[in-house]
Parts: sequence; structure tokens; C-alpha cells
Amino acid sequence: MNLTKLQEWLQETNNDLAYISNPKTIAYFTGYEMEPHERIFALLVFKDQDPFVFVPALNVEEAKNSAWNGDVYGYLDSENPWAMIADRVKQTTAAYQNWALEKNDLSVAHYQLIHEQFPDANFESDVSSFIDQIRLYKTPTEIEQLKAAGQEADFAFQIGFDTIKTGVSERYIAGQIEYQLKLQKGVMQQSFETIVQTGANAANPHLGPSMAKVQPNELVLFDLGTMHNGYASDASRTVAYGTPTAKQKEIYEIDREAQQAAIDAVKPGMTAGELDSVARNVITKAGYGEYFIHRLGHGIGKNVHEYPSIVQDNDLVIEEGMCFSIEPGIYIPGVAGVRIEDCGVVTKNGFEPFTHTDKALKTIPIND
Amino acid sequence: MNLTKLQEWLQETNNDLAYISNPKTIAYFTGYEMEPHERIFALLVFKDQDPFVFVPALNVEEAKNSAWNGDVYGYLDSENPWAMIADRVKQTTAAYQNWALEKNDLSVAHYQLIHEQFPDANFESDVSSFIDQIRLYKTPTEIEQLKAAGQEADFAFQIGFDTIKTGVSERYIAGQIEYQLKLQKGVMQQSFETIVQTGANAANPHLGPSMAKVQPNELVLFDLGTMHNGYASDASRTVAYGTPTAKQKEIYEIDREAQQAAIDAVKPGMTAGELDSVARNVITKAGYGEYFIHRLGHGIGKNVHEYPSIVQDNDLVIEEGMCFSIEPGIYIPGVAGVRIEDCGVVTKNGFEPFTHTDKALKTIPIND
Repeated sequence: MNLTKLQEWLQETNNDLAYISNPKTIAYFTGYEMEPHERIFALLVFKDQDPFVFVPALNVEEAKNSAWNGDVYGYLDSENPWAMIADRVKQTTAAYQNWALEKNDLSVAHYQLIHEQFPDANFESDVSSFIDQIRLYKTPTEIEQLKAAGQEADFAFQIGFDTIKTGVSERYIAGQIEYQLKLQKGVMQQSFETIVQTGANAANPHLGPSMAKVQPNELVLFDLGTMHNGYASDASRTVAYGTPTAKQKEIYEIDREAQQAAIDAVKPGMTAGELDSVARNVITKAGYGEYFIHRLGHGIGKNVHEYPSIVQDNDLVIEEGMCFSIEPGIYIPGVAGVRIEDCGVVTKNGFEPFTHTDKALKTIPIND
Repeated sequence: MNLTKLQEWLQETNNDLAYISNPKTIAYFTGYEMEPHERIFALLVFKDQDPFVFVPALNVEEAKNSAWNGDVYGYLDSENPWAMIADRVKQTTAAYQNWALEKNDLSVAHYQLIHEQFPDANFESDVSSFIDQIRLYKTPTEIEQLKAAGQEADFAFQIGFDTIKTGVSERYIAGQIEYQLKLQKGVMQQSFETIVQTGANAANPHLGPSMAKVQPNELVLFDLGTMHNGYASDASRTVAYGTPTAKQKEIYEIDREAQQAAIDAVKPGMTAGELDSVARNVITKAGYGEYFIHRLGHGIGKNVHEYPSIVQDNDLVIEEGMCFSIEPGIYIPGVAGVRIEDCGVVTKNGFEPFTHTDKALKTIPIND
């Protein structure tokens, strides 16, 4: 059905075919998910012919046994995939003048190799925005997967909280979380490297887990996610180990207020920029605006980061079915960091989060 | 020092600057490794000015505290990174007419955004091949990291073999391997998803671990790797659980002979295609040529797959310091799969593997 939309778009935009190269986009259209590394993996969609996927010989059997019911063609490492794709295209149709490329994904080098096969074709058209646009609105089936992934994230927080004690390292906690996800939930893939940050480490929002050890009376920040049937979760919680200082409590409560204000404010018809401002204003009024150094949120779906971008001045209108994160943060270099994040879906009147781990400041008793 | 080589290349090729966009390439030149997701991360190198890195604001502190001693500039999510990069370039030098791009990595969309900032510049030049070329020859420091990563892979095999028993799933075994790597070796990142395949599943070379359970008298294939200080390991072993059938034994011994023949044949001066043929001939003569459906091997370094490609008809001459895998496989659909793989470095006279787990067919006693 999504492929039909793409074919309609090709007809409307006067394109003959689309070359789809992003593996997540191919998965979205075909149900067949694969990471080709440096090999060639492509979906060719024609305005009026049946589409086909083109994969390394290694993956032909897997592709044929996948959810994809269309044609599958393979190439050996010793063959020239570009010449083979060109042959297949020419066997499929006589109309291959106007191509739409996924320009957000396709490398300049691959573009040039395709161009060499079709020196007289027209490659002006970019299908990326159309794909982002249709992927913006999640179907009920997609939302189900995102909720299931959210439940796994909630489970992961519980494991993380239960593992905290004096002297265990950030890496040990991250390791426990990923192991218990595998063992108890069958989660084989995180949507990104599990982040556990203690004390001042949490002031670097993207720092991976180190050998730093949990110490009493510090904040511990978790940012984690799983992949569930090809859909991502992504959520953050910050907890206190022992007794938080007045400063730690202060920034936590401001961040929590900002996050809740944004969740409460979501409404179809507002812009992404307006939503960012709701949280940013809370933090700025409290005097910490300069420490909130990223956008409020990002879309989520097959990618852990996708459209829409919930960022200042973005005029995109928020609508029902869009899914994104709400994750204000306050990062004070050398002192501490707080981030509270839920992903969720825009409903008729509001926002339904995919994660439900409590957000009142949790204090974990000291355990030496 | 590598940056000096790149600057010399810019002068020789009459380029003013290079825009480096592949995070692994940036890590190679700067010592600062980071995954930017959809944000912009770039290294700008000038023929006669100091280079700088450009990162999301989120990563500025981390970049400044990294091994990179040069300038670091950041951008907020609400800012236009392309305009900011253009300003920085113009502040750095008056010579920005001739650009070299990393065309194997840079997307067509990003290329167009850079082009918009410099509508009159010349973007013909591609620095990808030069970078592949210098990355082909590993330094002693790089080889040390690759060996350390190989030791982690050997450890991982041991965990995998020890975990096999009747009824445990492929995923459970993969989970144990990754958990024990974290716990006992501090390995936080696999170089790719750990592959454990039982019975006929192993005939699909890239299939991830499923809930399929180990059964007596089947082969079990492992393909796994770790990241060690930014360098990858990658190795495969196939073992028998219980008593292998005559067929299983036959294909194992042919594959082992092919792998050993290729390892013994490595010599500076031969071509990659000739090396592929050494193993392929063994398998073809034994009647299984059609079941060896991939190249013999791939380069390894900061990427788990990089140059050189050890593939039929590749005229690239093998030289001392190159590092790659030797991994013939025999895959019989519906029956079984065997792959034996070591990565190693080309020495003056031969090949020194990074992994040392024994390759005589290991039979694991049945444990119900």
C-alpha cells in the first residue's frame, strides 16, 4: 500500500522510477530489513511496472523468505552490481529517463556509478522528502510496535535502577541492562548504545558509559532504547543515588516541569517550534536556558531519530499520528546533567507516551 | 602525521581543502570518534591552514577533551550548520575554490547543501580513494589494537562453545557472549551483531541469531567481533554439537583446507584475485564451488569491512601491512553451512592471524 503511494507520486511528479537505497526505507516498503554494510542493497520502484529488490547473493535466500513477495535479484561479489541493475531496469521497462533518487541517503559516488550506466537520464528528482512525509504518520500497526518497544525501555530502567550501588561502573550497569533485555525479553538489538552517566559525566549528553563508578549522593542518568520488530524505543530517566543536593533537586524539578509542560501542550495544529518553546521557556525562566543545548525532540519510528524535528523555529505543523520524543535537558559542565525523555504519539487532543516509568525524583537508598 | 599526508595530497592535486564526512575517517585523522546520527560532523582540512572539526553543540566538550588538539566549532540544533561551516571556511582562508569531497560517504543532499554555500566552487575532486589508500597500510600501533580485538574474539568463541547445550537458543548463546565480553573484558561494542547459527540456519551467511534451539548432531556457526579502541575484530568458527554426519565432516574439512591453503599462500606481490583463487580452487575441485557464494575476504581496521577486497579478478597487489579476513564458506541450502575466518596482517613473508582459536573440527559432547 505504501508502495502504491510511491508509484502515484512517481506518476504525479513525472518520474519513471525511484532508486531507494536507505535500508530502513527499503524495510518500510518491503518488510525486508537488512544491513548490507558496503555491499549494494536497493529497491527499484517503477511508475507502471512491478518493483524489485536487488541484494548481495549472500542475502538472496533470506530476502525470498522474508515478508517481501516481489522479485529478488542478487549479485556475486565478483560481479558489477551497477551493470546488473541497469540490465534489470532495461528488461523491466522502456521508460527509464526520469529517475527519483533518495538523495538524503545515496552517496555521491553511487550516484555517479548509476549515472554512468544511464548517461542521458535525468536525476534531478529527490524522493527523500516524500518518503519522510509518508513516514511521518504512523499506522496503528506501527504504533503498536513503538508501544511494545517502549515497554522494553521501561523494563530496562527497572533493571538499571536495581543494579545501582556504590562502586559499580557505568559500563557494568549498561551491561546488565542489555543482558537482561536479551535474557528476559529476547531483545537482540538496542536502538543505540545504552547510556549510563554518573555525576558530572551526565553533563556531556552523548558520552557513552565509562568505567566511572557510582558514588553516593550523585545523580545517575539513563538514556536507552531497544528495537522491537524493526521499531525503536528511546527514553531517558535521571535518578538520585542517596541524598540529592539542593542544586541537583532544583535542576531535576525544573527539567521535569519543562517536560510535563511540553507533554501537556501537545495538540494537533501547533508547530514543532511552538512545542519546543513551551519547554524552553520553563527552563529559561528558571535561569538555565543556556544549559539546554539541544532541541526538544526528534521523530521516532524505524529510525531512532527521524522526522519531525522538534526544534526552535520549525514551522512544521504537528498532526495526529506523528511520533516523537520530548526530552528537555539541563547540563551543567563539571557538575551534573538531567534529562527526562518520553517518546509518544500525537492523538486527537494530546500526546500518548510510549514509556511510563515514574518521573517523580526517585532516590535510591545507598547500598555499599 | 596522517593529516600532513592529506595536506600534501591537496597540494599535489591542486585542491584548496577537503571536506571529510565519514566519522571513521575523522577518527582516523583526529583520534576523536563519534557517531553523529543525522547531525553534522565534519573535518575540514586545508592545503596551508590548520584544520578544524565541526560538531553538534552536544559534542563540543567531548571533542575538546578528546585526542584532537585542533580547533573545534559547534552548532546548535536551531542553527544552519552549512552557513556556519561556510563562514568558518571563509574566515580560515581566501582559497576555497577547489574542494575534495569524500564521495564514497557524502550524501547527494549534503553535497548540494555545501554547493549552495559555494556556488562557484569546483567539487570535481574525490578524496575517497586516497583515504582508502593510506588506510590500507596499518601502522604498528593499529596492528596492536587489531591483535587486542582478536584476543577478545578468541575469548568470545570460548564463551560460545561453553554455552552450547541441547535446547538453548541461538539468541541465548549470542546474549551470553556479549554479556561476558562486557563483564569480563569491558567490551562495550560489538563490531557487528553477533551471529550464532545452528543446523540449516548457517546456510544463510548473514542471518542474525533466531530463537532456534541447538539440537544434537548439528553444526553451529559463530561469526563475531568486537571493537577495541576503535579497531574491529571479525572471526568465524564452526563446531559440531554431538556427532557430525559424514557430509558435515566433509564440507568442514574442505573449507578448513581452503582456508589454510589461502593463509599459507599469502605473500606480498601476489594479487587479491590470485589469493581468492587459492581457496576457491580447493572448494571447486572438491565439487562445492557453487556453494561458496561470497568473496574470500575483506579488509579490516576502524571499519569491520574496508579495503582491500579479496575478490576474484581484483588486481590489487597485496603488500606488507595490509590487514584482511580469509573466510571461505560452504553453504548448502536446507542442510548446513560452514565458515572459518581469521583476520590478520600481511608480513614480509606471509600472514599473521589476529585470532588463534583452534580450527581442527571441535566436537562438543552432548549435554541435555
